Amino acid sequence: MIKGKVYITGAGPGDPSLLTLRAAELLRSADVIIYDRLVDPEVLKSARDRAIIVYAGKKTGDKWIQKKINALMLSEAKKGRMVVRLKGGDPMIFGRGGEEAEFLRRNQIDFEIVPGVTSALAGPALAGIPLTHRMLSSSLLITTGQEASSKRKKSVDWRLLARAADTLVILMGARSFPETAAELVSGGLSPNTPVAVIEWAATKRQRTRLFTLGALADGAGDEIAPPSVIVVGRVASLAKRLDWFRVDGKTTLKNARPASAGANRTSA
Amino acid sequence: MIKGKVYITGAGPGDPSLLTLRAAELLRSADVIIYDRLVDPEVLKSARDRAIIVYAGKKTGDKWIQKKINALMLSEAKKGRMVVRLKGGDPMIFGRGGEEAEFLRRNQIDFEIVPGVTSALAGPALAGIPLTHRMLSSSLLITTGQEASSKRKKSVDWRLLARAADTLVILMGARSFPETAAELVSGGLSPNTPVAVIEWAATKRQRTRLFTLGALADGAGDEIAPPSVIVVGRVASLAKRLDWFRVDGKTTLKNARPASAGANRTSA
Repeated sequence: MIKGKVYITGAGPGDPSLLTLRAAELLRSADVIIYDRLVDPEVLKSARDRAIIVYAGKKTGDKWIQKKINALMLSEAKKGRMVVRLKGGDPMIFGRGGEEAEFLRRNQIDFEIVPGVTSALAGPALAGIPLTHRMLSSSLLITTGQEASSKRKKSVDWRLLARAADTLVILMGARSFPETAAELVSGGLSPNTPVAVIEWAATKRQRTRLFTLGALADGAGDEIAPPSVIVVGRVASLAKRLDWFRVDGKTTLKNARPASAGANRTSA
Repeated sequence: MIKGKVYITGAGPGDPSLLTLRAAELLRSADVIIYDRLVDPEVLKSARDRAIIVYAGKKTGDKWIQKKINALMLSEAKKGRMVVRLKGGDPMIFGRGGEEAEFLRRNQIDFEIVPGVTSALAGPALAGIPLTHRMLSSSLLITTGQEASSKRKKSVDWRLLARAADTLVILMGARSFPETAAELVSGGLSPNTPVAVIEWAATKRQRTRLFTLGALADGAGDEIAPPSVIVVGRVASLAKRLDWFRVDGKTTLKNARPASAGANRTSA
């Protein structure tokens, strides 16, 4: 029996040109592509005409869908097919790539992991925010804001995180951010700490807004909508100086130039 | 006067197939390419015959070289040339991309930042280590070990970091790691915490070794050589279960199967 193989592949942060060469090559030759939501459909254009393309628009925590995805990977690989399991960003960063690999290993299916550019890093880079900086940041912490509200026992202790790293990057944290901001201030971060909210990172809808942590704790953030990458720390204010990303010729940094007089915006 | 532009571009972690499509396209059309050490020369093969290719093998902290790089970017861009400033991994993660962007902005030179796959994430992925995992890790902290020994005031407080995130990823920390491991234990991490040391990530020399934090604090780590990506946390032990990366058909995980009886290796 010829056994197939599953390629657990990162699709990058949105912009199809941020796919890796390896991912692009795999998509061109795949028999089956199983992809999640948030992946720009543009990246699927290079697939072969006879490729089977399955949308697995998984929401986090959806066990039923995960079982279907696992069963599909297994049955297609057992038929000898080349399966690309395509995930937004990097498959091993909040993408359950590790769990899918464990499932495949348990079922003796060969797999390969193809790293991708994660929006946790690309979002800030496109917004002109260096997550590390010789003078301002020598460490960065990436976490998810999602669990804060959905898990009984919170696995993210914001007060502990607050002062651990120079820069915090929070994914999937838009809805719970006012609460998170308050906990970070309780944990010892200054209310003046700059916060950049990058919406729709690496897409044509990308938009960056700058706040202070205190303003967000006080409710300025109820206008923050997913998908957003949130950057907390001194480097966030560099977005003003290094803003370069343009969509249709226009800056994507809002409410920051000229320096806003509004109480809710940082001007530090 | 036609002004050129500088593309601050990530070359990915080593394997040329992990370049982004955008980076590959820029390399094909660049007039000038200024690249750092640790970039696989293979990625330069697509450059045009008439492209000027400059090796800027910068060591961190080398101010003189940085000045030369800045001057070269400026003079070439002012001649109207398309300059690709190529950096290993992602240009904004310990790559001084932010500082170079600030320099260009101050000198009114247009720039673009092209994110790349960082070895901080790709190294673990290729070693079969998911940095986040629903059961084991909901946060990861990336930092550099280099400053620990070279700066008068340490900017990385290992005792504070120790328990902040579920997973620590340390770049450029090979030489100082025995010391770092001891500080992490002092900070409250169990000596049994698994540690994966991934040498030459994403190259044909990639090799993964597993230890415990306690064994490394006791000196097992004096054999750790740069370049290494070091992963500290429970996910590190998944390398045994998810090991898949092969070089010349051989596993790159050393001393882990069969479960070693040696005191210096983790078998948890």
